Amino acid sequence: MDVKDRKKISQAIIKRLPRYYRYLGELLSQDVERISSNDFSKLMGVTASQVRQDLNNFGGFGQQGYGYNVKNLYEEIGKILGLDRVHNIVVIGAGNFGKALAGYKDFEKRGFKIKAMFDQDPDKIGKSYGGINVYSINELTDYIKANDIEIAALTVPKAAAIQLAGILADAGIKGIWNFAHTDLKVPRQIVVENVHLSESLMRLSYNLVNSGNKMKK
Amino acid sequence: MDVKDRKKISQAIIKRLPRYYRYLGELLSQDVERISSNDFSKLMGVTASQVRQDLNNFGGFGQQGYGYNVKNLYEEIGKILGLDRVHNIVVIGAGNFGKALAGYKDFEKRGFKIKAMFDQDPDKIGKSYGGINVYSINELTDYIKANDIEIAALTVPKAAAIQLAGILADAGIKGIWNFAHTDLKVPRQIVVENVHLSESLMRLSYNLVNSGNKMKK
Repeated sequence: MDVKDRKKISQAIIKRLPRYYRYLGELLSQDVERISSNDFSKLMGVTASQVRQDLNNFGGFGQQGYGYNVKNLYEEIGKILGLDRVHNIVVIGAGNFGKALAGYKDFEKRGFKIKAMFDQDPDKIGKSYGGINVYSINELTDYIKANDIEIAALTVPKAAAIQLAGILADAGIKGIWNFAHTDLKVPRQIVVENVHLSESLMRLSYNLVNSGNKMKK
Repeated sequence: MDVKDRKKISQAIIKRLPRYYRYLGELLSQDVERISSNDFSKLMGVTASQVRQDLNNFGGFGQQGYGYNVKNLYEEIGKILGLDRVHNIVVIGAGNFGKALAGYKDFEKRGFKIKAMFDQDPDKIGKSYGGINVYSINELTDYIKANDIEIAALTVPKAAAIQLAGILADAGIKGIWNFAHTDLKVPRQIVVENVHLSESLMRLSYNLVNSGNKMKK
């Protein structure tokens, strides 16, 4: 399928695709060869019509009376998500959060390769966490250009993140995985994916407070 | 406003509320007293009609010709999000990720108080990170019951998370902030908020691959 055919996919569907991918990976690891949209939807806790509608957006991989071929669908969704190639990443900020990302080996299995970490703290520069070296933030631009780095994970405080976004844009970064609690202003061609933990916690809090009537005290 | 009046608020709006709250907090720290829905929407990069529609769901805090009173709106949204009271949290898993959460002081400012960490590793039990003590996982149930713990942050591998979800449910936890890459099966009255970093990274990857035509190489 050509990229052009996929232009109108909504971000709502994109948000659901990684979850389909995860469930298909689990089925695959259990040697399940095929699954009906009904069984797949029950497993995922969504309606069968949502499964069919979502997957139809990508040309539809199901066959009437057969269901979905798990391996094919897994691979196709992987391709759609860009997981069929390697994405080089740098982590900026060698605090606990940066170290946690560097130590998380599942990313590499999906083609996300953390190549280096950067920090401004002389005590951290030169150290290595989970096999990933920490370099001086002053070397960031050169490193990005020399090592085909596509994504920068920003695990620094807000003020530093805003400043670094400009430096990353100038260095030619393509995507920013932003953990700082602010919206980054970057040129349009740069993709920003935010992970705002405080906001996630507030949604949890909202749902706690507003489901209070269902709960036993 | 009564809880019952808010029953029909969609999760889509709930997802946006913390962001409104963040921008209002920033305006407040800049001593801005009031703002029109037009100016507010420009600041946030959304349409003015979305701002008005979203906030109308909560009774609408704007006044024609005046705009929004920043402090009032900030406080009202805070209440809606349940930020007007303290939520006690335990972090399960004292790895880098758990330590990062324990060290993040902004949570407490919003009323989210991390009271303790739990781990099964004897080398970690008895230690303290960011002022938070690590206890044995065997003490978890008693601690939750004795300390009015509302939320458990799960920063453990998938298999452990699935097992712990049952223990937490039995201990009477009300919310789980789940960082494990799996969907937890818990009784309906327990609220689960997932932070699936791998899926976030896949969305970033998708958007990178599918905006490729906009990029210069």
